[in-house]
Order: sequence, then C-alpha cells, then structure tokens
Amino acid sequence: MAQRDDALAALERGFERTLEDLIGLARIPSVSAPGFDPAQMERSAARVAGLLADAGLSGVEILRIEGAHPYVVGEWSGAGAGAPTALIYAHHDVQPPGRLAHWKSPPFEPAVRDGRLYGRGVVDDKAGLMLHLAALRAWREATGGLPLNVKLLVEGEEEIGSGHLAGFLRAHQERLAADVLVLSDTANLATGLPSLTRSLRGLVNVDVTVRALERPLHSGVWGGPLPDAATALAALLGRLVDARGAIAVPGFYDDAPELAPGERERLAALPFDEAGFRADAGLPAESDLVGEPGRSVYERLWHRPTLALTALEGMPLAGAANQLMAEARARVGVRLAPGQDPERVRDLVIDFLERDPPWGVQVETECDVAVPGWSTETEGPAFDAARRALAAGFGREPVEIGCGASIPFVGPFVEVLAGAPALLLGLEDPPCNAHGENESLHLEDFRKAARSSLHLLAELAGAGLR
Amino acid sequence: MAQRDDALAALERGFERTLEDLIGLARIPSVSAPGFDPAQMERSAARVAGLLADAGLSGVEILRIEGAHPYVVGEWSGAGAGAPTALIYAHHDVQPPGRLAHWKSPPFEPAVRDGRLYGRGVVDDKAGLMLHLAALRAWREATGGLPLNVKLLVEGEEEIGSGHLAGFLRAHQERLAADVLVLSDTANLATGLPSLTRSLRGLVNVDVTVRALERPLHSGVWGGPLPDAATALAALLGRLVDARGAIAVPGFYDDAPELAPGERERLAALPFDEAGFRADAGLPAESDLVGEPGRSVYERLWHRPTLALTALEGMPLAGAANQLMAEARARVGVRLAPGQDPERVRDLVIDFLERDPPWGVQVETECDVAVPGWSTETEGPAFDAARRALAAGFGREPVEIGCGASIPFVGPFVEVLAGAPALLLGLEDPPCNAHGENESLHLEDFRKAARSSLHLLAELAGAGLR
Repeated sequence: MAQRDDALAALERGFERTLEDLIGLARIPSVSAPGFDPAQMERSAARVAGLLADAGLSGVEILRIEGAHPYVVGEWSGAGAGAPTALIYAHHDVQPPGRLAHWKSPPFEPAVRDGRLYGRGVVDDKAGLMLHLAALRAWREATGGLPLNVKLLVEGEEEIGSGHLAGFLRAHQERLAADVLVLSDTANLATGLPSLTRSLRGLVNVDVTVRALERPLHSGVWGGPLPDAATALAALLGRLVDARGAIAVPGFYDDAPELAPGERERLAALPFDEAGFRADAGLPAESDLVGEPGRSVYERLWHRPTLALTALEGMPLAGAANQLMAEARARVGVRLAPGQDPERVRDLVIDFLERDPPWGVQVETECDVAVPGWSTETEGPAFDAARRALAAGFGREPVEIGCGASIPFVGPFVEVLAGAPALLLGLEDPPCNAHGENESLHLEDFRKAARSSLHLLAELAGAGLR
Repeated sequence: MAQRDDALAALERGFERTLEDLIGLARIPSVSAPGFDPAQMERSAARVAGLLADAGLSGVEILRIEGAHPYVVGEWSGAGAGAPTALIYAHHDVQPPGRLAHWKSPPFEPAVRDGRLYGRGVVDDKAGLMLHLAALRAWREATGGLPLNVKLLVEGEEEIGSGHLAGFLRAHQERLAADVLVLSDTANLATGLPSLTRSLRGLVNVDVTVRALERPLHSGVWGGPLPDAATALAALLGRLVDARGAIAVPGFYDDAPELAPGERERLAALPFDEAGFRADAGLPAESDLVGEPGRSVYERLWHRPTLALTALEGMPLAGAANQLMAEARARVGVRLAPGQDPERVRDLVIDFLERDPPWGVQVETECDVAVPGWSTETEGPAFDAARRALAAGFGREPVEIGCGASIPFVGPFVEVLAGAPALLLGLEDPPCNAHGENESLHLEDFRKAARSSLHLLAELAGAGLR
C-alpha cells in the first residue's frame, strides 16, 4: 500500500493544478449542438489531447469519423500483456448554455462560490475526465507507471446523442478492447455519497405540430366557428396525462417491467428525505409530487416511464396580436423504464396523438430519438473493486442506484465491447443542475472522486479480471 | 345631381393620386405597439396632417395627450351653422408586421398584385382614411366646397386599444361635436358587398403563467415525481373548451343574450357559402368548423362568445434540451357577445384557471383588457342616408352585419358624443388578412368606398339631421 499512499500524496499535491486544468478546459465553449461554432469542438479536442499527453498517455490522437465531432484517444500499456486493461470513457462536449441572463456568472468563465465551481460543462462532463487524469498523473508521478493498462476515449457528441459512437467503436474495436469499462458521466445519490449506477431509462422524443389554418387570422373577425392551433394543441396534449400526472396513453405501461422483490428492498433501504428532495428540485411548498401513486420516488425516477413536454412553441406573449394561431408545436419527451421497447412506445404515442385530433386539425409527428434503457447486475470482481475504491475515496460505503436519464453511449459500449463489465460512475450531485443554468461541481466531491479513481486503478489491477 | 356627377368625375380623375398618397402613407411603419419606434408615429401624424390640409381642411392640428401617440384633427365648416356636421374617424397606427419571412413583399413597401395592394396597414386603416380624403378632395375640386360641415379625427393608438381616446374626446368635446359619426374601420361581408356594421363583440384577455419549479430541471434525472410547467399548462388550458370547441367554463354563456327573432331572420337572409368561407379562412378540407352546434356561422362569429389561445409560450423546439420547464405561459383571448359583462367574464375565467391547478402548480393570471361589446339599431335618417350612399357607390344594395372583433374606440364615441348616430363603415374584405401577414386592400373596393363616401356627404347633407 506504500505506493498507493505515495500516489495519494501526489494527487493531493497536484490538486490545485488539476483544478486549473479543469477551469481552462471549461473556458472552451465546446457546445456540440447544431448552430454552435464547431471550431470550438476542435479547440476542445486539441486541449483534451494535450491533457492526455500531459498525464503520461501515449498514442494520443484526435480521431474523426464522417459527420461527427472529434474523439480523443490515448493509452498506456506499460503494465504488460498479462495485466488487465481498463477503458475509461468521458466526453468533452457540453450542453448549450441556455438563457444567459439566468447565469449568476458567465457560463464559460468558471467561478468558485461556496465550495462549488460554476460553469457550463464543469460537472457534465469535464470534471468526469479530469478526475481520472488526476489519478493517472498521480500514479505516474509517485511510481513512474500505472497499476494496470489504461485506454482513454473522450467523445465529442454525447450531448447530442452519441449518434456516431457505435460506428466509431466498431471501426476501432481492436484498439479499444478492454477487460473493464469505466464510464464516467453519472451521478451520486447525494453530495458525498458515492454511487454505482446500475440502470438507465430510455428516451423517446416525439415532436408534434398542430396545423389548424393556412395562416393566422384575426381572433375577433374569425373567432367562433374556426379552430385555432394553440387551443387544439393544448386540448390534444392535455389528454396525455391523467389527474395524477401519470401517462394516460392506453397500454403505455404494459411492457414496463415490475421490480424484482430484491430490487424493491434495495430501493427502500436507500436514504430518502422528501423535504430535501423537494428543496433540491426547487419544488414550491404548495406543489404536489406527481406520477403513479404506490410507487416510491426512486422507483418513479429510475424504473418507471414518465412523460413531459420539453418544448412548447406558439406565438409568444410579446408578439401576440389577438390572432388565431395557424400552427403550434410541442415536444413530448418520454423516459422509458429499463426494458421497455422504444419503438413500441414511439408508435403508441404517435398513434395516440394522430388518431383523433380535436376538431379535425392536422397533426404531424416526428420522432428523432428512440433509445432503450439499460440495466446491469453488479456482481463480480470488477464491481467489488469499484465498491472498495468508492468506499476508500469517499470514506463512505457506496450505494447502488438507477439513473432516470438516458445515456446513449452505454448501449454501443455494451454491444461492441461485449463481455466487459461496465462501471457507471460520476459526480453529479442533486444541486449540480447539469443541463440547466448555473451548472456546478462540488469541489470536495471532485477531490474524493479523483481519490476513488486512484484506488480503482489499483483495485482493478488486483481483481483477477483476466 | 350635376354637382355630384362633377365630384364623381373629379374623384375618378384623382384616383391615381389617392392611391399614391395611400402608398406613401403606408410606407411609414407607424406601429403603435410598445417596443416599436415612436418616432414613426410622429412621422405618420405629420404626413396625415399634410394630407388633411391638402384635402382642403382647416384647423389641421396634431393634438397630444399625456402618454398617447398623436391624434390629428381638421375640419371644414363652410356649409354654415344651419348645415349638419359629420365627424369622420379613422386611425393612422398599424399592427406590428408579424413574421417578416411570411410576407411575400416587405410589409412597409406596398406592392400591387392581382388587383390588391399588399402592405401593413393598407386596409387597416390607412385606406379607411384615404377614401374619405379622396371624396373631400373631389367635392372641393368640383364645387369649391362640401355639402355639409365635416370634422376629421385620426387616432394613433387604435391597434393598442384606444386607451386614451375617451379622455381625448372629453378634453375636446366641443370641438368634436357632430350630428353624425362616420367610423371608418370595419369590414364588408364579401368583396364588393357594402356593409353597415351594427354590432361588435367585447374582448377579455387573461394572461396565465404556470410555475411548477424554481428552475428548469433535466427531464431524465428528475422526471417522474415532479410536475413540469408545460404539461400542467396544457392540462389546465385543455379544460377550457369541450369536444365541440365550445367554452367549458361553467356559467360562461349565462349572460350572452339570445338573438331577437327579427335578428335571427336577418342573419338567415345574408348570403353564406360554407365552401367560400372555409377558403377565405384558409381552413383545411379535413378540419371541422367548431363552436356551439345549432347556431349559424354568422351567429357564432358576431353574437356568441368564443375563446382562443392567442399566445402560447414555453421553451421553443430550437432551444429544447430535454428539460422540465419551470414556467410556461399563455394568453386566453375571449370575445364576448354584445351585451355580456366583461368584468363577470374576466372573473369567471380567472377563477376557473386558478381554482384547481393540476398538481398544485402555481397559477398566476393578469387581465389588461376587458372591454364590452356594442350594438345599435339602424333606423333613422342617418342610416337611410348611409344605405343610399353605399348602394350608389358599390352598385349593390348594402347588408347589415355584425363584427366579431372588438373596436374599443366605438364605446368612447358613443359615450362622449352621445346622441349622434354612429355609422360603422369600412372596406376590409374576407381575404384582406388585417393584423396578419400579407395584409391587403382590394383596389376596386377602395374606389367604390371612396365613391360611397362622396355620396354619403351629399346624402347626409340632405337627411334632415338638424
């Protein structure tokens, strides 16, 4: 353990520099969404490549496939052919910053307040990369090497759905082969509580456009016998949920698997504090929780499907001039239970929206995203190693959780690199507001996560993975 | 009739110039709405004042009252104290142009296509002013005078609700006293069919804001137990109408007066062609007409209340990032039957929206507009004169119609200048798309309306109004 202690000391000595590197990386507005400057993705890839080389990796390269933002890879194989290999994944792209006026400090000028670092992408997922680089650097500085072979893959389009990742992995299957996957982009159940994610929900987005008229019409001159698109859209969307907020599309829940008894017990044993949950979510005191009664909050968050309108678009109030709208639009965003069939859900939702539109208005739908959920068992030496590493890094026993979000990259990894156990780890905490304005990183958890990564490299090396 | 024939000939000779004056006036983007350049309202008022002087009026002045866009007035009293006086009203402000990309030619560069003049404000209401100026000019040119005394009032804030008009009329009550009001801003039932408007609907606008969360949240990480503002808003708004599109707010119709038997017969006698109505409205073939069954389209348009969402505002699709919306908004625009109480309707709608919000979300409402409808009988010498003038100008017997819109200026006129009959005339036709993009004026109807105005001055002079 002397070497590990030396590495931990090196990590602590280097932590200021790790933080500086993170801040430098987060200054680059690497937004992968269409409409944002792709040159920033190139800048970001070049910076990431420099950080990988700086951590002692060799073979650092920026790899491209047609139509995708750049990937960055690097590796270290000094542990030899007999040692196991870990493939570490993170992503260097970020969400659009949203409404600038809502940021307390500019999204791409990272700022520390009250023990948190604020900025777009700091927790999702630039810290997810930096925590591993800090651990690699510390091992190299203390021992001149690493406990096992390591490969790093840093993606550039996670925030837009990892559309090219499966193709990329297939094209580089041999180069990226590994005994264990460390996927670094998930959350902890609470600040300071290390968590291993064992399931993800799927995602189906259906965009719906209602067309009631060929053009907007004066609401006084024409109103009465004519439908308007906004009222028709509201009437249509209002049918999607019932009075409890549960999904009212017939048959929708039929293929959502019930929890196994052991899973239900595990959820029940997790700490839950409704007042804290409501405060973290920013739910006003007078508002109710919604969804299926008789299911716990964790079950509703991780194991049950849910539906929200994630876009709603008509004439805004500032432009309104007493007109009947010709057209109005919305996005119906459905999160699927792990195990639900995305094509089936997509077809159910589309049929429900199109079958019987109010007053015969035209309803058009479009579905660009239909990805399944995912789940894993957490038995075996890699998961045992992860639990030990998290406990050592955080000073607290880890929990096993689900994730209500959909992480499109997990499917391709599991499919293309079949057989390797997938460890889903990360450091988003409830107040971090990933994807929202004022995204932030808890700095003490960042340090603990880097320490866990350092332990993980040693624990995996000794886990008998090959 | 020789003088009148001379005047008609002068009107024809001057018609090209009238059209040029209209186009020049319509080049000024005199948008009265907040956020648009008020200097354009000043330019427009100055141009209108020039046109009034040019038509031979004296005492032409730009008048102001605190907080309002400028009014323009002018008069001619050469007919002497024994002759009656007509007060002619029009407005020089226009609606915002809406979505520029939807205009086939730029809104403030008037363009003629297929016998129509396209541009913002051409029919609403700059032609409504110019048709009278053309008639005044023709009379002056042919006879050196007018058949009766005339006053003109041209308002600058009709499109934002005429909020200062009552105060303005009271401040200038003596100066504006008249025996008959000619209010020039309404519609004809069909192109080429002259129409006298005898009723208007009222208007109540209620803006509703739903707040579900303090900030937007990742829909995957948080979705399930938490409400989102857009879904809650859709559920709330969906309650407002029933499956026929009729208003579902209990008690809403209770104070909407039923038509008198004579009125019902008059409506039934008006020409109506459902196919033509649908085509003018731009209603797709597969869409149904909506509203109360058992009521004719004209009754639904003019004499029954109706409700539409005239604004709908959430995260637009282009900015959507799989988030639960914290806030979403809409405007509920209600048109009242003539005779309905706007305060009662406002309170009913607000109570309905606030009483039982889905899942306890916060609902806030705001009502800036609550104006009653209006109606008049059309008996007496002024109305007889108007009917003769319209028949002579258009070569077709006029009809009497309602107007589904709310014209806030009518109330103040009738209140402040009490006793004078109000003739509501105009030249909007079904395809004119006033308030919408590609607003247009039917040029042949413009000529006919100017001829009617010329006749009207003579008919009113001989009607025995004083």
